[in-house]
Amino acid sequence: MKEKPISSAVTKRLPRYFRYLSELKEQGTERISSKELSERMQVTASQIRQDLNNFGGFGQQGYGYNVEHLYSEIGKILGLNRVRKVIIIGAGHIGQALANFQDFKKRGFQICGIFDVKQELVGQMIAGIPVMSMDSVEAFIQEQNIQIAILTLPKEYAYETAVKLMQYGVTGFWNFALVDLKLPGNVVVENVHLEESLMTLAYNLSEG
Amino acid sequence: MKEKPISSAVTKRLPRYFRYLSELKEQGTERISSKELSERMQVTASQIRQDLNNFGGFGQQGYGYNVEHLYSEIGKILGLNRVRKVIIIGAGHIGQALANFQDFKKRGFQICGIFDVKQELVGQMIAGIPVMSMDSVEAFIQEQNIQIAILTLPKEYAYETAVKLMQYGVTGFWNFALVDLKLPGNVVVENVHLEESLMTLAYNLSEG
Repeated sequence: MKEKPISSAVTKRLPRYFRYLSELKEQGTERISSKELSERMQVTASQIRQDLNNFGGFGQQGYGYNVEHLYSEIGKILGLNRVRKVIIIGAGHIGQALANFQDFKKRGFQICGIFDVKQELVGQMIAGIPVMSMDSVEAFIQEQNIQIAILTLPKEYAYETAVKLMQYGVTGFWNFALVDLKLPGNVVVENVHLEESLMTLAYNLSEG
Repeated sequence: MKEKPISSAVTKRLPRYFRYLSELKEQGTERISSKELSERMQVTASQIRQDLNNFGGFGQQGYGYNVEHLYSEIGKILGLNRVRKVIIIGAGHIGQALANFQDFKKRGFQICGIFDVKQELVGQMIAGIPVMSMDSVEAFIQEQNIQIAILTLPKEYAYETAVKLMQYGVTGFWNFALVDLKLPGNVVVENVHLEESLMTLAYNLSEG
């Protein structure tokens, strides 16, 4: 896997594979052909075979894919079998909604704390997680060995805050601030652009 | 515009153009060359010229683009100059966060009501918007001429609920339920896959 880099188009499809396999598993499906998987996912069967071959393939001629096995292998490739410690920056509405997001735990993401600059929020509990002051974030990251920060703060503060968190040891950001966050150095940023998604909806409605 | 369909790759970039232009406008920038815009957006200058030519182009040789003009033209193309009436289905954490999302109004989206099946939530106000019973959603959609529904309900109920809402007159869905919603007929669906975004982050962290 490390030898031959996998194209970002493939890695973008992996979470979709994982989600579909997770649904199949819930439905009790034990095996699936690339043809059936392709119909569900609306990509071609040859695309599926090609994608999964990047990871050594998992299919058997005439049998198809074992759902449980493929699910667990893709989960490993996605790194979902590890536990990752996460903090949320910003205890506003989005921060609260994410703290309540049930699927984190299933995927190995452990929310350890929520931080906010607003002192009046400090000490509140959100989904069983304490809101702490931003003044204590540096010590917390280092003591707890926090790897990921979810940013739900106003865009004006996103960059400077992220740079500080990097210096404290955070290596991954899930960014909900309404700005394309580009950070220097060796960190991973996943920008969520809700606003762009909304505009795409508006555009498609206008064209309809 | 109607004569020559625009590729979905281009339409996907339009919201990004719009967002960058919106930032430039806020900073008081009056004009920008395709070169500068390309550096900000990390796409090539020729890509930008090509994309904007789909809409008749807006640049002038040796001057670049007038930010205000381009912003307003792209806004029109995206249909952001219209008012659209929206309801939120599900008054849980994500529904609440979205009801509080300030940018809706700026983009012409008017949240008219929030609906939930839980009777104990009915009558509550969220961001100044009343929570109503799902029993009254049909009459509400028809009386208020609602066009868009934001779905924040459990995935098990997403499809059947969406089909009903379509029958009542909804033509666009912004779907936060953790399922790829595919609906029959002539409606627009924009699926938001928070879970996939999180898995992409996990994968990129594993590879780092």
